[in-house]
Amino acid sequence: MIYSTLRTSLDDGILLVTLDREDRMNAFTPEMADELESLFRGVNDDDAVRAVIVTGAGKAFCAGMELGAEGNVFGLAETLTPTMDDLRERLDDPAIRSGVRDTGGRVTLAIYDCLKPVIGAINGAAVGIGATMTLAMDFRLASKKARIGFVFGRLGIVPEACSSWFLPRLVGEQAALEWTLTADILDAETALKGGLLRSIHDDADALLVEAKALAHRIVDGRSAVAIALTRAMIRRNPALPHPVEAHRIDSLAMFYTSIGDGKEGVDAFREKRAPDFKSKASTMPAFYPWF
Amino acid sequence: MIYSTLRTSLDDGILLVTLDREDRMNAFTPEMADELESLFRGVNDDDAVRAVIVTGAGKAFCAGMELGAEGNVFGLAETLTPTMDDLRERLDDPAIRSGVRDTGGRVTLAIYDCLKPVIGAINGAAVGIGATMTLAMDFRLASKKARIGFVFGRLGIVPEACSSWFLPRLVGEQAALEWTLTADILDAETALKGGLLRSIHDDADALLVEAKALAHRIVDGRSAVAIALTRAMIRRNPALPHPVEAHRIDSLAMFYTSIGDGKEGVDAFREKRAPDFKSKASTMPAFYPWF
Amino acid sequence: MIYSTLRTSLDDGILLVTLDREDRMNAFTPEMADELESLFRGVNDDDAVRAVIVTGAGKAFCAGMELGAEGNVFGLAETLTPTMDDLRERLDDPAIRSGVRDTGGRVTLAIYDCLKPVIGAINGAAVGIGATMTLAMDFRLASKKARIGFVFGRLGIVPEACSSWFLPRLVGEQAALEWTLTADILDAETALKGGLLRSIHDDADALLVEAKALAHRIVDGRSAVAIALTRAMIRRNPALPHPVEAHRIDSLAMFYTSIGDGKEGVDAFREKRAPDFKSKASTMPAFYPWF
Repeated sequence: MIYSTLRTSLDDGILLVTLDREDRMNAFTPEMADELESLFRGVNDDDAVRAVIVTGAGKAFCAGMELGAEGNVFGLAETLTPTMDDLRERLDDPAIRSGVRDTGGRVTLAIYDCLKPVIGAINGAAVGIGATMTLAMDFRLASKKARIGFVFGRLGIVPEACSSWFLPRLVGEQAALEWTLTADILDAETALKGGLLRSIHDDADALLVEAKALAHRIVDGRSAVAIALTRAMIRRNPALPHPVEAHRIDSLAMFYTSIGDGKEGVDAFREKRAPDFKSKASTMPAFYPWF
Repeated sequence: MIYSTLRTSLDDGILLVTLDREDRMNAFTPEMADELESLFRGVNDDDAVRAVIVTGAGKAFCAGMELGAEGNVFGLAETLTPTMDDLRERLDDPAIRSGVRDTGGRVTLAIYDCLKPVIGAINGAAVGIGATMTLAMDFRLASKKARIGFVFGRLGIVPEACSSWFLPRLVGEQAALEWTLTADILDAETALKGGLLRSIHDDADALLVEAKALAHRIVDGRSAVAIALTRAMIRRNPALPHPVEAHRIDSLAMFYTSIGDGKEGVDAFREKRAPDFKSKASTMPAFYPWF
Repeated sequence: MIYSTLRTSLDDGILLVTLDREDRMNAFTPEMADELESLFRGVNDDDAVRAVIVTGAGKAFCAGMELGAEGNVFGLAETLTPTMDDLRERLDDPAIRSGVRDTGGRVTLAIYDCLKPVIGAINGAAVGIGATMTLAMDFRLASKKARIGFVFGRLGIVPEACSSWFLPRLVGEQAALEWTLTADILDAETALKGGLLRSIHDDADALLVEAKALAHRIVDGRSAVAIALTRAMIRRNPALPHPVEAHRIDSLAMFYTSIGDGKEGVDAFREKRAPDFKSKASTMPAFYPWF
């Protein structure tokens, strides 16, 4: 697939996705939204991709929504007066999809639905949608030089890309409120202490080395179906009203993995050898998706 | 408005509310509950108030429910045998409202519904409802001398004011269980490390200086509608079952702020000047409240 | 009650439960699942038990599911093709219960429903179900030598025992994903920093001393009903969609404790003496369970 705002390379199962508008600090455009959404939806059917890393070309990760152009920068259909019913009942109606829905949310929902682990490698400035898109990823690693800002308040607008759902899960409600309400630019150390970042690295090279190492630790010699199920369970189940709801899901997930890759896993454990798992995320067990 | 248990002053958009029963360590009474509920409900219609700070008169913040009087200290109608159906179906029935409902909960629900950021400036002892009322605020700052206690267990009663909903969001389940089950009095350092407090300050004066500085950083030159929406989204959306629900809401919030203050915000950004936002929280976009 | 996989002793209201298959590092079996489930369900009716501590015999806490035997190690009915409807509609159908449901989940749901505080004293290796069973407990204390691993990924299977529901509540989503997806073995220090453990102790003896001290601080001189309600509220209410739902519950809980043990609590407070609470968890107020 050819992208105009992204560069991709696949190496040993790890798909490296580089936001590639270096002269614009990789600012986000409607085209980049479409390409990222398409990429993450497509990854689910591609068994050659075991994990995804997202980083930025040059010194920035993503400087936020492209505001350089004249006119209606957000691409919204100002002639509409959308209501909550519109968003509940006809989310994919073309008029709502293109004229009302937040473009960042289309991307983060695709990341959330991805069957492969997704690692954000934040190499520099990550501002606005550049910050919020990483919240839907499984891990956020950063270089020392990273600067992260939920700066919507400066423009008189609000956090998007489902960030109000994701951010408090990662950093707690008090920090989520401070970071969005003050619109401060956070340095990497503050973001690490707050729980947003998993780890900080000396420079962009060291960052990518660690991102790849983490990806390999997760996928090498592991069951693709078990990874996809684990990721979905950890991310989705806490929103359920009672642990018995998780019990229904993990019972089925354990049942179908146990009679699949689990047999090889137990045999290999007994025989003290590495397992040879066969399952593919393109063919999930019949109960998936359960939601 | 004249209060008998509170003192208020408005300075440059920041409403300072002082719990004002100094000779009783600002102990909470039914009258104080009514006045706080009324104050926070009223703030929503008063565009002159951009943020609220709550502190205590004298050395204490609030020593908890006033137990000094004789008789039925909680004001409950012991002749009733209320059921969950009563609380679900006739919450505002006068008999239930005055004879059964927890008074602290009426206050914290009003704070939760507030359209303006609320900062707790905990200047000293904050015990029982003195502790739980701060959980519904956006930020909790404290002086070094603050002591915080969820002491209900000592009296054979339970945490109230919706604190079972708020506290685990702020400090995690394990600390929330320990602090309520042991009924220990926490020093400021423990409460900071546990994530309850945002910051600790040398004395009550330094505390108020920082509380005001934080309030100004949040509201000065910012959109009143964007602040109200951001606060509601960060606090409410994580309880939704799936991020697509947040997407419905943030799409509408982004839509209506973008065609409102957002235009001025983008123009000011392009022209490298401070924005001049016009929106008022007394006139929220039509989709608000969505819940 | 006589158990074959557990050893129990009751001392001053604290029930010490020792996983007792020392020659197998206390590996978990279907029989141990049944015995633990039965024990935790039975504790609710036994007012002599005020709190429960769980530890392991010998050097390990629990080395995970017993994989030593030949055959279908998980005891699943491979001839079935269970669906989500089966798990929703006939969870207790014998075929589903014995052939499909995760055994660990039966244990953690019983711990979750327990009316008494439960403390995990992790004296050594806690792997697989040995790790996940502790997530449903109120507190996790560990010795320095403890090693904790959510190692399901190594076997091609998934986290169970409702751990996808419990773990992110305790350690946040990012750490929960890393620990389950990498299947790393965590040392005690890492687990403490991540928020999984409450505290670390020098050895198994010091661990039990502190576990007992914590239990006594929670239950000695306290109301059994208030403890049971507080525990249920803190653990269940955050999953509710709005704090007003917690308000309904805590209003009733406060009402019924106030006209019960609360009267003695207030009297004792006024008279500056220790309270003498009478309530028993075997006789909960009529509105319990509300869920």
